[in-house]
Amino acid sequence: MASEGRQRVIIERVKPEIDCGRFPIKRVIGERVVVRAGIFTDGHDRVAAALLYRHTDESEWRETRMKPLVNDEWEGAFTVEEKGIYYYTLQAWVDHFQTWQKDLQKKSDARQDVTVDLLTGAQLIEQAAKRISGAHAEQLNGWAETLKKAEGKASSKALSEELLSLMDACADRSLATTYGKELAVVVDRKKALFSSWYEFFPRSLDSKEGKHSTLRDSEKAITEIARMGFDVIYLPPIHPIGETNRKGKNNSPVSEPDEPGSPWAIGSKEGGHLSVNPMLGTMEDFERFVKRAKDHQIDVAIDIAFQASPDHPYVKEHPEWFKWRPDGTVQYAENPPKKYQDVLPFNFETDNWQALWEELKSVFLFWIEKGVHIFRVDNPHTKPIAFWEWVITEIKREHPDTIFLSEAFTRPKVMYRLAKVGFTQSYTYFTWRNAKPDLTEYLTELLETEVREYFRPNFWPNTPDILPEFLQFGGRPAFVIRLVLAATLSSNYGIYGPAYELIVHDALDGKEEYLDSEKYEIKQWNWDREGNLKDFIARLNRIRKTNAALQTTWNLKFYETDNKNILFYGKTSDDLSNVLLIAVTLDPFHIQSGTLKIPLEELGIDPEQPFLAHDLLSGDKFMWQGESNFIELNPHVLPAHIFRLRTRMRREKDFDYFM
Amino acid sequence: MASEGRQRVIIERVKPEIDCGRFPIKRVIGERVVVRAGIFTDGHDRVAAALLYRHTDESEWRETRMKPLVNDEWEGAFTVEEKGIYYYTLQAWVDHFQTWQKDLQKKSDARQDVTVDLLTGAQLIEQAAKRISGAHAEQLNGWAETLKKAEGKASSKALSEELLSLMDACADRSLATTYGKELAVVVDRKKALFSSWYEFFPRSLDSKEGKHSTLRDSEKAITEIARMGFDVIYLPPIHPIGETNRKGKNNSPVSEPDEPGSPWAIGSKEGGHLSVNPMLGTMEDFERFVKRAKDHQIDVAIDIAFQASPDHPYVKEHPEWFKWRPDGTVQYAENPPKKYQDVLPFNFETDNWQALWEELKSVFLFWIEKGVHIFRVDNPHTKPIAFWEWVITEIKREHPDTIFLSEAFTRPKVMYRLAKVGFTQSYTYFTWRNAKPDLTEYLTELLETEVREYFRPNFWPNTPDILPEFLQFGGRPAFVIRLVLAATLSSNYGIYGPAYELIVHDALDGKEEYLDSEKYEIKQWNWDREGNLKDFIARLNRIRKTNAALQTTWNLKFYETDNKNILFYGKTSDDLSNVLLIAVTLDPFHIQSGTLKIPLEELGIDPEQPFLAHDLLSGDKFMWQGESNFIELNPHVLPAHIFRLRTRMRREKDFDYFM
Repeated sequence: MASEGRQRVIIERVKPEIDCGRFPIKRVIGERVVVRAGIFTDGHDRVAAALLYRHTDESEWRETRMKPLVNDEWEGAFTVEEKGIYYYTLQAWVDHFQTWQKDLQKKSDARQDVTVDLLTGAQLIEQAAKRISGAHAEQLNGWAETLKKAEGKASSKALSEELLSLMDACADRSLATTYGKELAVVVDRKKALFSSWYEFFPRSLDSKEGKHSTLRDSEKAITEIARMGFDVIYLPPIHPIGETNRKGKNNSPVSEPDEPGSPWAIGSKEGGHLSVNPMLGTMEDFERFVKRAKDHQIDVAIDIAFQASPDHPYVKEHPEWFKWRPDGTVQYAENPPKKYQDVLPFNFETDNWQALWEELKSVFLFWIEKGVHIFRVDNPHTKPIAFWEWVITEIKREHPDTIFLSEAFTRPKVMYRLAKVGFTQSYTYFTWRNAKPDLTEYLTELLETEVREYFRPNFWPNTPDILPEFLQFGGRPAFVIRLVLAATLSSNYGIYGPAYELIVHDALDGKEEYLDSEKYEIKQWNWDREGNLKDFIARLNRIRKTNAALQTTWNLKFYETDNKNILFYGKTSDDLSNVLLIAVTLDPFHIQSGTLKIPLEELGIDPEQPFLAHDLLSGDKFMWQGESNFIELNPHVLPAHIFRLRTRMRREKDFDYFM
Repeated sequence: MASEGRQRVIIERVKPEIDCGRFPIKRVIGERVVVRAGIFTDGHDRVAAALLYRHTDESEWRETRMKPLVNDEWEGAFTVEEKGIYYYTLQAWVDHFQTWQKDLQKKSDARQDVTVDLLTGAQLIEQAAKRISGAHAEQLNGWAETLKKAEGKASSKALSEELLSLMDACADRSLATTYGKELAVVVDRKKALFSSWYEFFPRSLDSKEGKHSTLRDSEKAITEIARMGFDVIYLPPIHPIGETNRKGKNNSPVSEPDEPGSPWAIGSKEGGHLSVNPMLGTMEDFERFVKRAKDHQIDVAIDIAFQASPDHPYVKEHPEWFKWRPDGTVQYAENPPKKYQDVLPFNFETDNWQALWEELKSVFLFWIEKGVHIFRVDNPHTKPIAFWEWVITEIKREHPDTIFLSEAFTRPKVMYRLAKVGFTQSYTYFTWRNAKPDLTEYLTELLETEVREYFRPNFWPNTPDILPEFLQFGGRPAFVIRLVLAATLSSNYGIYGPAYELIVHDALDGKEEYLDSEKYEIKQWNWDREGNLKDFIARLNRIRKTNAALQTTWNLKFYETDNKNILFYGKTSDDLSNVLLIAVTLDPFHIQSGTLKIPLEELGIDPEQPFLAHDLLSGDKFMWQGESNFIELNPHVLPAHIFRLRTRMRREKDFDYFM
């Protein structure tokens, strides 16, 4: 029979609350946390509720009042302003004064005698005055006197907002219910939500006549990547590559002596995860590269692949971190019948697992020292999820700027769990969602379920591992279509280049693997080849940078059109100062036309007034009026419109625009 | 860096789990608990999972294996066999042997060399043998030898089910993950799920010339109530009624000296909640009444209304349990502008709340002593929800047979919370759901959401407080319609009689209150009046008793018909030995006809073969064939069919039926 028997208010079903509070939600600086809960008490008493929140560095809770919606559902919100971890919880109490006012109002309306009720009110006010002091208390005592002297005739005064607000400020919370959990928010820097990634192999980017190029050679490319508008350069593993079972061209199990091997076969006598492949240059070259990128506001992300080539120093230093077979050989990676003989997985069930965890953590810390604050993690779903939770939490505690991108294209529950345990951004199934129902269904799952609270999508139309069929067969229009979709549906996106902008579409027969993949050989790119997409990409990224609506994923809304090959959607800033309507044909072959149904009411547009739709991709301007507007998309010219709307009605300063 | 770093399996999102395990789910003896969870591990390893469960009296867990469905969702189930509380939790582990078999199968299929793999398998088997002893261990060692000697040629043996099952029985669970919570199931006796309630006022049932009748008089009625097929008799409060501010006829604030008052104004100088109103008889009479009912397998339920008349002994003994107004008067119940001057609510915020809670608990215990095991609780939503959780838990610990029916027609979250904290059955909004979309939507909420795990509906077409409009204006057909719906949609239902079976439909003007309500006066019923529904009720309850499909609520399914005034639904026993299809017109005025779409495939009926539909209400038999069957319902004759299907195909023994 606990002492809280008199805490009559119930707080239940708080949202967001991931897996009963086991995991934090995610936000970036400046985003809002909207909290809802069921809050109610027995009987007819009025309830008041507060949302409490604090940054982990603050000892005191801050507070904002919650508002009732319908059916005992309440809502409150706060904005996160600092990186790190915030906590939030709820408090609610029976508000006897508000209840009294409500009842007085009803009795007053029914012309019932309220003499005793006013005395009751005066009592409540006097009790409140005793809880506080100073001017506030004096004011309250004044009110109590007024009510006592009124002889039943002071209802209108007693019902005043002024009195309510005075009483509310010193409400009796001694029997308040506090929600039993403190729920966490991980707050990241803005790039966690808005980033444009460019992946390339430095050994090929500036290759001349098939010669291995270096980080120094690649420095020149930074300017061009910056011109295209990317703000993350992501490099596949930059470490020494093993020689034992080195892979040859097109994933051949046998290689010629001069072949470079797969960068994911990490480790040789020249070092492991803390070394730079000498073919790429020195550690100093790497640090210089990172600095050069930083000069362009570009983060360098490196790939963290926790696996070892048979030549990795770990194999001799820590044989217990690997599995050994009955014939005395070390177990290489396999997913039968596939074999990956150039790669050894770690045995996370080793008795010496704690040392292994510490060592892997030190890899992240090492590269953070070298200026890397973004890590793309290779195949995280093949390492224990508990490890990721531990290592990401450990690292972000000291380095809250760090961003971890999860490269997991696996079962949905596993992908989501990796996000829950801490990955900042995640690869998605976008890569294989091409048709309208598939895209809308998937985006709806990502955006309109609890998933949005912890899983930040990063959309990749291609990767070195995946050349999707749509790109193999759809020609240039397909590349433009997928690029526009990735860059406008999701605020985080990336491409693997120069294969992308050069429209490389030859695949291994019947597979989604690149033919003559750069993973196994040095490629020689003609980066300025005619027909490349570099200028288009630059335009698209410029549109992203100058339109706030594209800098978040959470504002996406799908709208109606009568053509099932056209995807029509909108993105707007909260204050509607930036309104984009985007139409993309999903058909790379034929001209598609259709009628867009503009959500006039939602956008506050007068159906009787014309408004300007400015296509930011083509530069064309259209005067539209009313709900229905016809468009035609020729994929060979431009398969998409990104309309920025300007409406005469909404903002005076847009008026000039029409002149 | 916890030691569980090597526990690689994740168990998440266990269902059912109410509010993070804060509340138990509910079952009756013999029902199944089907548990689902997301269970997976990193990488490609196979996982095994067990559902653990135990009755609170057992110290050891019992175990049943779970099976994977799709997308890492697993399912397991157990049946509860004893009253009281069960617990369940989950355990899951990486199954290295199963993983090895899966990989061996793939390599074998790809005709890869498996020499070393068989040695690896032999190692796993030998390790397993070391974990156990005796014949099982010897058998395993035999297998290990076979695999070692096979020189790569024993794949088919190694892949055998026999070996898998031997290994499974001694799987290495040292790194198993156990779900962190033990979730509770409250198991009730069967009546908690299948009950037919009859409510009446004993002071009126055998009244002659308006004279107050007694419990002794009412004994005669028990036989008739039993004949109608009810198994719960529910009596409004049987305690002495206060005289101060006693209510008169039709809720008048003033009463004549000979008026009996409302039974809910509990307490007078003759006693309070532990006394029997002398006008009804003595405590011995009450106990006799309970025994007489028991002779007919009828439980007597009494109403527990925690409130007091101004004359209740509590008011003097415990003034601190009430609210006092500034003018020195005691605060009566009110919901402005409504006043209930004959009733004082308890002040649960009193400093002496613990004594109040104990006193109220003692009321339940007192009546349990007198043979009452079912309580209908009046307005539980106006008392602290924490109190109900405490008192119901306390009482059910010693008296697990006790059933508590929550009379809360209030906001949905409050109703559901009351069920979560322990109420066995609950009043519902059924009383006001008349149209087809309203009924289907509401039943879908009750049956196809988590609510079904803890909220057992009890459907009441009328109560002494509510004469719904549909009954006021729909005549006899309306009463039949609502009765059939209540008794067949929900396995728990009740009526307030004799007003119901006598088709009393006069209401206070514009209200859903009975005119000349029995709550405030003695009524003289002519129970055998022509046109009464007693025989029909008896038939309906007999159908309920002889058809297992009607003895649970959870098997309801709605089916298609082309008439929006006809509700068509089915109930079947798990083994399909009892199949009912029910069609009810919702229109009490006009003949309605339509085509029912019989779910042939679901019911295992051959579309080419005729089957018998036996209307258990009318006794008519129809030979049907195929999916579409036409019906016509005349509300003035019989507004419903309850078809029991007999199909030649399904069971041979039904064959006789056609002869």
